[in-house]
Amino acid sequence: MIRAAIAGASGYGGAELVRWLRGHGHVELGALAAGRGAGRPVEDVFPHLSGVAEGAFAPTDWDRLGADADVVFLALPHGEALAAAVRLLAAGARVVDLGADFRLRNPAAYRRWYGAEHTATDLLTEAVCGLTEWHRDAVAGARLVANPGCYPTASSMALKPLLEHFGDRVTGAVVIDAKSGVSGAGRNPRDGYQYSELNENLKPYGAGAHRHQPEIEQELAAGGAGPRVFFSPHLAPMTRGILAACYVPMADAPSREELEAVFLDRYAGEPFVRVLTGSALPQTKATLGSNYCDLAVRVDRDRGLAVVFAAIDNLVKGAAGQAVQNMNVMLGLDETTGLLAAPVFP
Amino acid sequence: MIRAAIAGASGYGGAELVRWLRGHGHVELGALAAGRGAGRPVEDVFPHLSGVAEGAFAPTDWDRLGADADVVFLALPHGEALAAAVRLLAAGARVVDLGADFRLRNPAAYRRWYGAEHTATDLLTEAVCGLTEWHRDAVAGARLVANPGCYPTASSMALKPLLEHFGDRVTGAVVIDAKSGVSGAGRNPRDGYQYSELNENLKPYGAGAHRHQPEIEQELAAGGAGPRVFFSPHLAPMTRGILAACYVPMADAPSREELEAVFLDRYAGEPFVRVLTGSALPQTKATLGSNYCDLAVRVDRDRGLAVVFAAIDNLVKGAAGQAVQNMNVMLGLDETTGLLAAPVFP
Amino acid sequence: MIRAAIAGASGYGGAELVRWLRGHGHVELGALAAGRGAGRPVEDVFPHLSGVAEGAFAPTDWDRLGADADVVFLALPHGEALAAAVRLLAAGARVVDLGADFRLRNPAAYRRWYGAEHTATDLLTEAVCGLTEWHRDAVAGARLVANPGCYPTASSMALKPLLEHFGDRVTGAVVIDAKSGVSGAGRNPRDGYQYSELNENLKPYGAGAHRHQPEIEQELAAGGAGPRVFFSPHLAPMTRGILAACYVPMADAPSREELEAVFLDRYAGEPFVRVLTGSALPQTKATLGSNYCDLAVRVDRDRGLAVVFAAIDNLVKGAAGQAVQNMNVMLGLDETTGLLAAPVFP
Amino acid sequence: MIRAAIAGASGYGGAELVRWLRGHGHVELGALAAGRGAGRPVEDVFPHLSGVAEGAFAPTDWDRLGADADVVFLALPHGEALAAAVRLLAAGARVVDLGADFRLRNPAAYRRWYGAEHTATDLLTEAVCGLTEWHRDAVAGARLVANPGCYPTASSMALKPLLEHFGDRVTGAVVIDAKSGVSGAGRNPRDGYQYSELNENLKPYGAGAHRHQPEIEQELAAGGAGPRVFFSPHLAPMTRGILAACYVPMADAPSREELEAVFLDRYAGEPFVRVLTGSALPQTKATLGSNYCDLAVRVDRDRGLAVVFAAIDNLVKGAAGQAVQNMNVMLGLDETTGLLAAPVFP
Repeated sequence: MIRAAIAGASGYGGAELVRWLRGHGHVELGALAAGRGAGRPVEDVFPHLSGVAEGAFAPTDWDRLGADADVVFLALPHGEALAAAVRLLAAGARVVDLGADFRLRNPAAYRRWYGAEHTATDLLTEAVCGLTEWHRDAVAGARLVANPGCYPTASSMALKPLLEHFGDRVTGAVVIDAKSGVSGAGRNPRDGYQYSELNENLKPYGAGAHRHQPEIEQELAAGGAGPRVFFSPHLAPMTRGILAACYVPMADAPSREELEAVFLDRYAGEPFVRVLTGSALPQTKATLGSNYCDLAVRVDRDRGLAVVFAAIDNLVKGAAGQAVQNMNVMLGLDETTGLLAAPVFP
Repeated sequence: MIRAAIAGASGYGGAELVRWLRGHGHVELGALAAGRGAGRPVEDVFPHLSGVAEGAFAPTDWDRLGADADVVFLALPHGEALAAAVRLLAAGARVVDLGADFRLRNPAAYRRWYGAEHTATDLLTEAVCGLTEWHRDAVAGARLVANPGCYPTASSMALKPLLEHFGDRVTGAVVIDAKSGVSGAGRNPRDGYQYSELNENLKPYGAGAHRHQPEIEQELAAGGAGPRVFFSPHLAPMTRGILAACYVPMADAPSREELEAVFLDRYAGEPFVRVLTGSALPQTKATLGSNYCDLAVRVDRDRGLAVVFAAIDNLVKGAAGQAVQNMNVMLGLDETTGLLAAPVFP
Repeated sequence: MIRAAIAGASGYGGAELVRWLRGHGHVELGALAAGRGAGRPVEDVFPHLSGVAEGAFAPTDWDRLGADADVVFLALPHGEALAAAVRLLAAGARVVDLGADFRLRNPAAYRRWYGAEHTATDLLTEAVCGLTEWHRDAVAGARLVANPGCYPTASSMALKPLLEHFGDRVTGAVVIDAKSGVSGAGRNPRDGYQYSELNENLKPYGAGAHRHQPEIEQELAAGGAGPRVFFSPHLAPMTRGILAACYVPMADAPSREELEAVFLDRYAGEPFVRVLTGSALPQTKATLGSNYCDLAVRVDRDRGLAVVFAAIDNLVKGAAGQAVQNMNVMLGLDETTGLLAAPVFP
Repeated sequence: MIRAAIAGASGYGGAELVRWLRGHGHVELGALAAGRGAGRPVEDVFPHLSGVAEGAFAPTDWDRLGADADVVFLALPHGEALAAAVRLLAAGARVVDLGADFRLRNPAAYRRWYGAEHTATDLLTEAVCGLTEWHRDAVAGARLVANPGCYPTASSMALKPLLEHFGDRVTGAVVIDAKSGVSGAGRNPRDGYQYSELNENLKPYGAGAHRHQPEIEQELAAGGAGPRVFFSPHLAPMTRGILAACYVPMADAPSREELEAVFLDRYAGEPFVRVLTGSALPQTKATLGSNYCDLAVRVDRDRGLAVVFAAIDNLVKGAAGQAVQNMNVMLGLDETTGLLAAPVFP
């Protein structure tokens, strides 16, 4: 059995990790560490975990976590994983970081977008991007995996096959218009996020100025030059789910069939990717509660545009599910272990 | 491996059965039979099942279903299970009926509430009520289990311990004010159930005239006389979940502690029942996607009233989950096999 | 033109008052006073009011408010209206209090339920309950009107006609199972009220221990002895609306026709009350955004039970709308002035 | 008083017209004509209109409607307004058509997108586009106004000022990623639109193949050449509202300030347009129930992209509200008459 622990377990990402790890089958779930929640019974903070995760949240003792666990999942506010990762790795644990601290490769970019100095730049070099389908081999040998954000996961899964084959035909900035459920904003109550003001409301935010924009550009440029990206996120009145519509201006765009074939080929055999054909299009509910990423392409050659739609559950393939997928790869288990639950529908 | 099949697989109950049976571990899922959906690819009808359940819906051939399966789940409109059960049992299969045809013991009551003659009265006598926690032994030996409805499941779980101990103190009709998600109304689109008219809307329906009222009264009277019940259902703007508030007028009502002790004792060791204490109260979201039934009691002795709240996921403990729980019992498996998934939260 | 002002204008009740007063036709809307919001542009706090209410929130200067306005609406946290009312009345303004400070007649009850001493007991005697349809004459001559809470409004409108005619047949505690939209909880973000935890969730709270229970009992006893009430509120996943189901145990219950006739008679000519007959039942959405209170009755004589359902918009008939209705009555305008907007549907 | 009538009054557009016309002040609302709903009491079909619109839906008798009304609003399925308009105009009434029949100027385009021959091509020439802010003078003299669709209204309001000033800098297809509430799909229940399948779901549909794409291209080209448009609609889990994000690839894009100034200037004095500045962005809820169109611009010069966001209530500015606005203009009333209701928030 793999001994796993979670730091930052009292947030939504933490709760979702508990759900997957408790049902994993090859994992013994140890400490659920939390900051201000330490000492509180888990079921007080998360009533749904009554009977699922007994006991109380643990204080966050990095050395002990690192010593007692084979793998530690970090679901922390940005900045907090820097020192933590250093100590956990030193203690011999592997680390899957669901947060932002090891995503941007460039310390200057980190400073610019997160407003603080990166204090673990050695690990920046070592950390592997946890977009499993694209970095599987590196993940397999990694001590530290930086899980991509929910938006970058959906966007990269949608755009990388297209760019790999037709990147040279892209003529301008790629627009990613993404719509997210509210859980992506985390658990802290704050102004403007009250139920009554988000319900029956659709709103854009942070267009062109969201931290995930440089992260997406970085991933799309992996192994060469990538396109400029304009990232335009929206908040939708739902709890879970991301739907990303990626608009790619192209000269001599491939036909839909041609582009679809590239996706079908690239993702053939991928257990968590479903390329939809015919009239079907991704929808968030078809992925809810599961680790699936659904994709579909459309092309309008007259207008010089290829479009890729992607849908994921932001807390699963966009966070906890992909984290467990990476853990499976890191520790040599079958990649799908514990992750095959069907989506919850309706 | 147990060979299972589903009839009526293209409705919500059918889809939920697929979800649980595909991840069960000891079940080989055979035919997904459907009426008007026969021949259609499963993923066209249920996009979320792409990659989960391949192939097409099968035509409904009772003899073949009965011969090829150890157990057949029926998720059919009322009336359709009567002949089906006869043939399936004759073919040697066991049957778990998620519908209404074998719930009311009295053929006259069936005629009154369902407007048709009961044509399988022999089986009426044989059928066992599938409220697992209360009829486990009978279920274990049954060929035909009649899964209780979602409302009766929540209501009976809430009221039976109270009645068992304090039934003689009940002074009048028990009021069950229940609130249900919309999925309980089934998949057929119909007037008044459009998204735009249910969203941001809370409404009562069928107060005192719902088919589940006699079913609840029957179950509460099991093994003797039970109280009269006034059942008052409401539709809430959510997809899944039932919250039942059961108000019991009592003379010399027990204290809350006394009543709570009865519940804690009765449900001790029950893997799918959580009796909440302290300030906690059941909420539908804490059970979403899981087979849990959450319960809590309150007492107002001055006003001569005991209250029991129950929350379940109507499609799981109220339908497919309890059906699988019954299958496990019928076939001698551990009762929790394949059913321990944690609730999906948030 | 009537000069009106609002104190506590930066909450949901305040915003709703602005909506109604700006479209009233006979009101000149003066200061929008706020506490921590003072000085902030209205449109920053309430984007929907851009172009509707220009300028900034004013500081709360009671003497000035009282001097500049004919009527001041108070939408304040409990406790804050005590001193305010004294000063506003002294300055010559009339006051409609949407809060709780002048609802409970008994200072001891106030102390018990609000945990503080009532410091304006003289005004307690003077204040008139603003359930307009039942206290119209008193409201007409009042300087200070205490608007009933949203739950008591719905509950009292539902129960008073029944009790007036058949109060002597009531045999036990009346159960009020009420379901409310989230806006009733106010605007302050707090734990447990995050969008992601309320959405797709139905939950009871404060059963038998809510401050509105004594308020309802007081109003139902107006002019004599009333029944005991067990008040059981629930939070529903919607923004606005209250649906109250009132269960009345009765000996020799009247027939539905008899009871319906009482309601039709009592509310005949009332512009904001709609008594539904036939198969219709109240639903919150049919009142959304309007000052209507919808009612319907059911009776089960076998079970000794009468049921009255009521639906209102908690922010309109349950707060701002009824407050304006009271203002109209206090100042001698036609009671419906500015209040006839149809519900927003769907 | 203006005598008005509605044909197609039993749909959502019809109900919304009733809401605005009943509170208009200068309108006497006559026949509410309906197809299959004729003869049914209005309050049976629309419970919220109990007490607002008495009586029953009328049969659709064009000659009588045309004779009895000064203006007739058509809220019909496409195809049905063709003959109706001819007869209504012949009978002397003016017509505001909320449907699609007189939107596309080119009969060949009509045939292609609506699959039927246009049988009133004379009126096609005469009909005036009812985007009031842009065709006010023509509307003033019109007998027949073709109200633009909800998506084209939002999109055109967003893009026309930009194109007017900077149209020559546009370098490629404009992408309009629009998100709509479900009420835009109309009232007919149909598969895939069940509450349970749309709730907690965000999904694209008809990308690049929606009938509103040619309508938008036509309007953007009014008075010259316009850009190619790729229209990508989505269904969001809410009842009302459209949020359109319009992405315009530009060479030498203006600065945000420059672009904002163009919008502020163009819409200065427009009572129903709010250009948001600073950090504010449009959100559907800020327009709910009102005739406002909220706009904001962003520019990323590095990426060669200007973005305009627009929010409207699809049933108001996107349908019934703009229709009444056009009626006001046609009949010489102040344009805002009866339309100044503030948005409903929260």
